[in-house]
Amino acid sequence: MGNCSQGCKDYFSRQKNTNIRLTLPVVCFVWQIAMIILFGVFIRYDEESDAHWVETKAHDNITSDIENDFYFRYPSFQDVHVMIFVGFGFLMTFLKRYSFGAVGFNFLIASFGLQWALLMQGWFHSLDPQTGKIFIGIESLINADFCVAGCLIAYGAVLGKVSPVQLLVMTLFGVTLFAVEEYIILNLLHARDAGGSMVIHTFGGYYGLSISRVLYRPNLHQSKRMQGSVYHSDTFAMIGTLFLWMFWPSFNSAITDHGDGQHRAVINTYLGLASTVLTTVAISSLSQKTGKLDMVHIQNSTLAGGVALGTAAEFMISPYGALIVGFFCGIISTMGYIFISPFLEKTLKIQDTCGIHNLHAMPGVIGGIVGAITAAAASESVYGKQGLINTFDFTGDFKDRTVLTQGGYQAAGMCVSIVFGVVGGAIVGSILKLPIWGDPADQNCFDDEVYWELPDEEEEHQGSIPPILEYNNHMIHKQQDLSESNFSVEHCES
Amino acid sequence: MGNCSQGCKDYFSRQKNTNIRLTLPVVCFVWQIAMIILFGVFIRYDEESDAHWVETKAHDNITSDIENDFYFRYPSFQDVHVMIFVGFGFLMTFLKRYSFGAVGFNFLIASFGLQWALLMQGWFHSLDPQTGKIFIGIESLINADFCVAGCLIAYGAVLGKVSPVQLLVMTLFGVTLFAVEEYIILNLLHARDAGGSMVIHTFGGYYGLSISRVLYRPNLHQSKRMQGSVYHSDTFAMIGTLFLWMFWPSFNSAITDHGDGQHRAVINTYLGLASTVLTTVAISSLSQKTGKLDMVHIQNSTLAGGVALGTAAEFMISPYGALIVGFFCGIISTMGYIFISPFLEKTLKIQDTCGIHNLHAMPGVIGGIVGAITAAAASESVYGKQGLINTFDFTGDFKDRTVLTQGGYQAAGMCVSIVFGVVGGAIVGSILKLPIWGDPADQNCFDDEVYWELPDEEEEHQGSIPPILEYNNHMIHKQQDLSESNFSVEHCES
Amino acid sequence: MGNCSQGCKDYFSRQKNTNIRLTLPVVCFVWQIAMIILFGVFIRYDEESDAHWVETKAHDNITSDIENDFYFRYPSFQDVHVMIFVGFGFLMTFLKRYSFGAVGFNFLIASFGLQWALLMQGWFHSLDPQTGKIFIGIESLINADFCVAGCLIAYGAVLGKVSPVQLLVMTLFGVTLFAVEEYIILNLLHARDAGGSMVIHTFGGYYGLSISRVLYRPNLHQSKRMQGSVYHSDTFAMIGTLFLWMFWPSFNSAITDHGDGQHRAVINTYLGLASTVLTTVAISSLSQKTGKLDMVHIQNSTLAGGVALGTAAEFMISPYGALIVGFFCGIISTMGYIFISPFLEKTLKIQDTCGIHNLHAMPGVIGGIVGAITAAAASESVYGKQGLINTFDFTGDFKDRTVLTQGGYQAAGMCVSIVFGVVGGAIVGSILKLPIWGDPADQNCFDDEVYWELPDEEEEHQGSIPPILEYNNHMIHKQQDLSESNFSVEHCES
Repeated sequence: MGNCSQGCKDYFSRQKNTNIRLTLPVVCFVWQIAMIILFGVFIRYDEESDAHWVETKAHDNITSDIENDFYFRYPSFQDVHVMIFVGFGFLMTFLKRYSFGAVGFNFLIASFGLQWALLMQGWFHSLDPQTGKIFIGIESLINADFCVAGCLIAYGAVLGKVSPVQLLVMTLFGVTLFAVEEYIILNLLHARDAGGSMVIHTFGGYYGLSISRVLYRPNLHQSKRMQGSVYHSDTFAMIGTLFLWMFWPSFNSAITDHGDGQHRAVINTYLGLASTVLTTVAISSLSQKTGKLDMVHIQNSTLAGGVALGTAAEFMISPYGALIVGFFCGIISTMGYIFISPFLEKTLKIQDTCGIHNLHAMPGVIGGIVGAITAAAASESVYGKQGLINTFDFTGDFKDRTVLTQGGYQAAGMCVSIVFGVVGGAIVGSILKLPIWGDPADQNCFDDEVYWELPDEEEEHQGSIPPILEYNNHMIHKQQDLSESNFSVEHCES
Repeated sequence: MGNCSQGCKDYFSRQKNTNIRLTLPVVCFVWQIAMIILFGVFIRYDEESDAHWVETKAHDNITSDIENDFYFRYPSFQDVHVMIFVGFGFLMTFLKRYSFGAVGFNFLIASFGLQWALLMQGWFHSLDPQTGKIFIGIESLINADFCVAGCLIAYGAVLGKVSPVQLLVMTLFGVTLFAVEEYIILNLLHARDAGGSMVIHTFGGYYGLSISRVLYRPNLHQSKRMQGSVYHSDTFAMIGTLFLWMFWPSFNSAITDHGDGQHRAVINTYLGLASTVLTTVAISSLSQKTGKLDMVHIQNSTLAGGVALGTAAEFMISPYGALIVGFFCGIISTMGYIFISPFLEKTLKIQDTCGIHNLHAMPGVIGGIVGAITAAAASESVYGKQGLINTFDFTGDFKDRTVLTQGGYQAAGMCVSIVFGVVGGAIVGSILKLPIWGDPADQNCFDDEVYWELPDEEEEHQGSIPPILEYNNHMIHKQQDLSESNFSVEHCES
Repeated sequence: MGNCSQGCKDYFSRQKNTNIRLTLPVVCFVWQIAMIILFGVFIRYDEESDAHWVETKAHDNITSDIENDFYFRYPSFQDVHVMIFVGFGFLMTFLKRYSFGAVGFNFLIASFGLQWALLMQGWFHSLDPQTGKIFIGIESLINADFCVAGCLIAYGAVLGKVSPVQLLVMTLFGVTLFAVEEYIILNLLHARDAGGSMVIHTFGGYYGLSISRVLYRPNLHQSKRMQGSVYHSDTFAMIGTLFLWMFWPSFNSAITDHGDGQHRAVINTYLGLASTVLTTVAISSLSQKTGKLDMVHIQNSTLAGGVALGTAAEFMISPYGALIVGFFCGIISTMGYIFISPFLEKTLKIQDTCGIHNLHAMPGVIGGIVGAITAAAASESVYGKQGLINTFDFTGDFKDRTVLTQGGYQAAGMCVSIVFGVVGGAIVGSILKLPIWGDPADQNCFDDEVYWELPDEEEEHQGSIPPILEYNNHMIHKQQDLSESNFSVEHCES
């Protein structure tokens, strides 16, 4: 590649049109109107949220309002909701100058995604054949949030490199693919995956990585000055980490069986996550010359245990089993950041901004495998006869399934989620490559400047963005008579 | 107005006494002692929080502790509590140098307000005629938090322009007015308003705007350098936005009917808010030349849907109805920031720091209207016979009321809240104009320096306040050409 | 002490080895593996989280899953969990350059501590004599978090002055001592202490102070430049404060009796904390020449009321009683920061970074005393016959205990917690003095640089660390010598 050709490329790339004044409002309006129409046609309150419940209740001999599913699931729902908006949003604020994009676009795509998810999941899972309606309640809201989580994971891989319009497109297809793979895994294969190791994390991880591969930017180093964190942005990111970490027990238990199912899923996730923290710290310290810790590892790898318990948390994996899963996930995820991420970038050309491969994809696969093994090893002595039936839902068409077969189907589900992620991501990535979405030029990646009105004062004075500070310095230099050729180049954009 | 007179005015205004060392402690002590005495005379535990409950329970044939109202409402209460202290507090941290005042004064007035609200609401709503006592339980705490919300909304209009003593006075009267209008609207008119579109948001909004009008500062431009945000302060504000947004379903459902009432209110609010986000983004993008987003809109207008569903969330508005309400509120609220706020300031002389007109007053009015229409359109076929009675509480004196009449009373309630806000605010504003409260001079507004001990180091070194950093440079320059041996020493470690 | 000797000492201290690349990973790995083995031997799911529950339920005539203890306690558990990780973690981020250490090490030691607490508390409180197993459920998780809280309080005293390895050692012994004193106080003395005024706060406070005394650093002034806060770090700390404050009602009610017990504990804590805020503000304002508020007081003393109601919140202390307790705690705690902390440092040589003496130790002792008095004053007329038995658990061996005796045992419990804190802290402090733990030199205290890889850009450009900004200025100046007239203009406003 000649110098000139490189220069020309740079020139054109610098001219990239990131004006989204037409596309973003149009997409938002049209899609939101479509949602309203589709909701009008399809979505209704379910029995327990309908004003007729007072009659239903009498009919079903329910004596107290407290047995409304709402009271079983609402606390978990709110925790999951916090994970989606504050957890994922703030986890991605670690970049020095992309906090608005991290929190703001996360907010936007989650808000769209959850509406679309209610429809897609409704059509696939709970369309009432008689009325042709989808009846929603608190569990539907949780599932919609789960579905959105898959897309937010994918956002982590392309953070800072795409436009909000691309993100909305990615979410539209992501939710669609999610609902299909979920239907195959949970309904057809009848695999169990309450916390979504496979359905959410594996799918979301590979979906994002695959898109990132297609959108590979060979000249991404041009925005190197914007990569990495600053002190305060790392502290903001810890807000995201901690809310994810603390509420993960709610995530993994939110839609498990009432009673002991939810109870057990909480205990297992709580323990697994605690174990992960210790091994993450150990490996992070080992990886540096003087044993210093790396914030990237603490922010991300500490969560791997929760991901990996997404399938097995509701099983009788036993407390020490949960600790063991967390133990290995902390090691593997942290090593992923140290060894695998650079390899993926250099060799496989996958630029993974947040390292979702280490936090979601790998631990998700581990979680699927742990789930398959634990299911295959289940026994009546451990679960009790009825406990076994409840836990694996061996009812209806599946009442004769053995635990061994169940283990096999769990493993099959694992593969389905990987295939959907990789293939789906490749197709969606190709769509996102069209030059109509207003994505940023290589040298403007990771910069809120592109899509956000930034506070003026900040730009002039605070200087937490290097080039701008340099610009200020430069102004001073101008009167100093020093050569600033390197500065002038960078100013064209600022 | 002559130059000299202006100069003199400036001089005196600059000399304004902001010393609150006497007034603030006196107000805090006296009022807190008054609270203790009044609580001693009036407030007792209600049946369900009293140690005698074990007997009450037996008497009422309650078989399980889980039917204590505590378990129906506690999760929602905690979410509302987070909205009051973290939500409102951090939402107001967006100013570059008023985070301490935003979070700290919010903390102070909410803590006072909730005590006074328990008394005021108790006297008006639940004074036991036999014993002369007010019996409180978890629902009282939620209502006290709600009442405080009205005052915190009003704080948004005067943020940065008043002293903490003024805020306490504003809260004292605000809570008092709130309890009266709430009594008229909910008890006398028997309007429904579980999430407080009228009672909380409309009242709070107009109360704040009216006060702000009376306290109009023609020379506020003198502190223009302190208005606006910096990068990190906008990120902090997003913490407030998101916790308000996520927990709004709890806000609107916290005191609705057990069972399907709470369940439905959550679903409606969840959907309405999601819809608002998309239209807010659309209008925000449309309003800028290159389609860039404005943080002010994202921080505030995304919440308008929750406000507007405050009345109707518990009704059978249906999921797509909630989406429609959210859709229009996002548009109207964002346009309010773009067009109405400048108009209010220039023409009506209302300086509304946080834009509460766009976030609370207008969406609150919309919510009241939506509530009136939805109530008037209610039917037995949609609600069921008993459902209709439960939802609108057509019992006792109101058992013969028709839905149409109910709609009329809802609209009347709307008007009551506006009148109370405007008139009450005008009176309280006049009180706050007395020159005894230690409010800041025009050129010291929006500056934590006035009421807070600020960290020293910050002022000297960090420089997120422009003038001071420059000042430092200047100071250093002035004495330059000195030996910098002390610098070299310190570098050894860094 | 001669100058030379001082110089030599400085030299050696500067050479202190803070390399923890060996010790930290080894401790993490070995201890985590030990946890796995011990969990494998001892820890099992309890009845309500075991898949056999479906049979247990039938046996116990439980008709609904909602009566699983999970639904009584899970919302409170999640709130407590947030207090431990976000509350304590962010409260300690106030230092200008120790946010990573505050949040990160808090995260690490809490994650280890909760595992060890499950074992220690299990052995002492719930080891099943027949099976030799510990059965855990949601209440065990809450208790483990409580136990960890004691150690995190102690961390506050030594914040910035110890290595993560020392913190882990401190936690190991802290949890051990905690479990023993808790066993003595709650089981042997049969004192009540649901929110842990004595067991958690008094013990944790004195444990930390005692350790800090043994680790006294006479030359700590050498890192004076790193003490104190900056504007944003104080704002971050308010996140911690508010989450602690808001969720404290959950803390004090998390393990109280189902029904009215939890309900009442919430009301009392809610009121006590509100009262504390007003008196804290009053004293803080009084303490400064012009009545300005001090962030240190607002961040910490506002919480003292919650600490002091840890014992009595579940009693019939009555709403105004709770207000009175909060009233005095706000005063005493704030005065502690103003008068007692400097005294402790100068005279008793206790360097207490976060002022835990004022926030935990003193209010904890007050809480113990309030608990003893309230217990001794309890009567059947106030509690009801069965209410009295339930509240003080006068069953089994203790069924003939009078309230007066109970008051005596409460006071005895108070003393036990102080003794365990002081003596235990002294012993553990001596262990931590060994020169093998990689603690920082006096001039490197309060600096994340020692144990964390810090973002590069930050160091070069943002300059929230003073010496580095000065360095930059200095560099620019060197080549300067220009007129600064433009700077002078802007200063008029500042």
